[in-house]
Amino acid sequence: MRRETLQNDDMDLSTLYLGLLHYPVYDRGGRVVCTAVTNLDIHDTARCASTFGVRITYVINPLDSQRELVGRILRHWIEGPGAHYNPLRKRALEQIRVRATLGEVVREISEAHQMPVLTVATDASWQDNAIPYGKMRELLLDPPQPYLLVFGTGWGLTREVLEASDYVLAPIEGISDYNHLSLRAATAIILDRLMGDR
Amino acid sequence: MRRETLQNDDMDLSTLYLGLLHYPVYDRGGRVVCTAVTNLDIHDTARCASTFGVRITYVINPLDSQRELVGRILRHWIEGPGAHYNPLRKRALEQIRVRATLGEVVREISEAHQMPVLTVATDASWQDNAIPYGKMRELLLDPPQPYLLVFGTGWGLTREVLEASDYVLAPIEGISDYNHLSLRAATAIILDRLMGDR
Repeated sequence: MRRETLQNDDMDLSTLYLGLLHYPVYDRGGRVVCTAVTNLDIHDTARCASTFGVRITYVINPLDSQRELVGRILRHWIEGPGAHYNPLRKRALEQIRVRATLGEVVREISEAHQMPVLTVATDASWQDNAIPYGKMRELLLDPPQPYLLVFGTGWGLTREVLEASDYVLAPIEGISDYNHLSLRAATAIILDRLMGDR
Repeated sequence: MRRETLQNDDMDLSTLYLGLLHYPVYDRGGRVVCTAVTNLDIHDTARCASTFGVRITYVINPLDSQRELVGRILRHWIEGPGAHYNPLRKRALEQIRVRATLGEVVREISEAHQMPVLTVATDASWQDNAIPYGKMRELLLDPPQPYLLVFGTGWGLTREVLEASDYVLAPIEGISDYNHLSLRAATAIILDRLMGDR
């Protein structure tokens, strides 16, 4: 029943990437903004990404000061006192990269794999031609094609980002009419649906 | 494909409860401790619980000062400035109750339903007789039996709590040998596996 387990060194075989986008995203009023980095989002996302075989998680923010902040957090846990205090956290955070734009990330992955990466946007509501989880799960089992799952902070990815993506994933549906998960919860559920051994 | 959607008023029909236990749990050294409440755990858990049809989420902590802290957080969002700022957060947090002990919670649910609640512990490693998600999902569809899902903060539920539970749920397995999810991520994934429309 168990899928093949990737050991640490096997992560080089993974073709799944994750992007945590801070711009352009909507704020609660529907305005396009750049959000601030949330420390806990980085930790939780890195731990989920490591558990579910993501190769690299990109924290994407165009502001120098925000990228520097993430750099300081990462150094604390990878080289600083945090590395000794919690080696498992170090291992999870080592797969984080910090970049300014989504375009830069797309180019970097495409160059590394010598083929265009396909982008998979996520959104809390149904989009036209949303791809179901089972279908996406099958696509992800088809190397060498790399995929970049894009999550929006704030109130979500802008229409332009959604429309420019190769796929938009179906929204997460619970069994209530309440549907307002945190980014941390949504990331965890989506990675489990796509990659988990269930 | 969609399961029946519970509207706000239908939540009275739900027989699923959730407990966030702060004592007794292990610390990183394997000592039994009482952990401090994490503000974000309460928010994230309430939002997940509301999405996946949990009737009441119990924050369980034996320390008066910690329960008072949770009370202040809840009042801010339910009656205070937070209620106007974010009505959706208010709705999620309204289903939180704060209690001192797991025993008190078990008695409260059992009395409300006029039958003993069955407890379902969660743990990051395989326990003897762990129940798989598919089987647990079937059990949860069988009202009027109430179930209490118990999550441990810190480094997890103590052996005594696991052994005293009616069920222990199978651990979450990703596809890597890294398996150190945050409580927030684990709660989200487990509720989705048990209650989500996938």
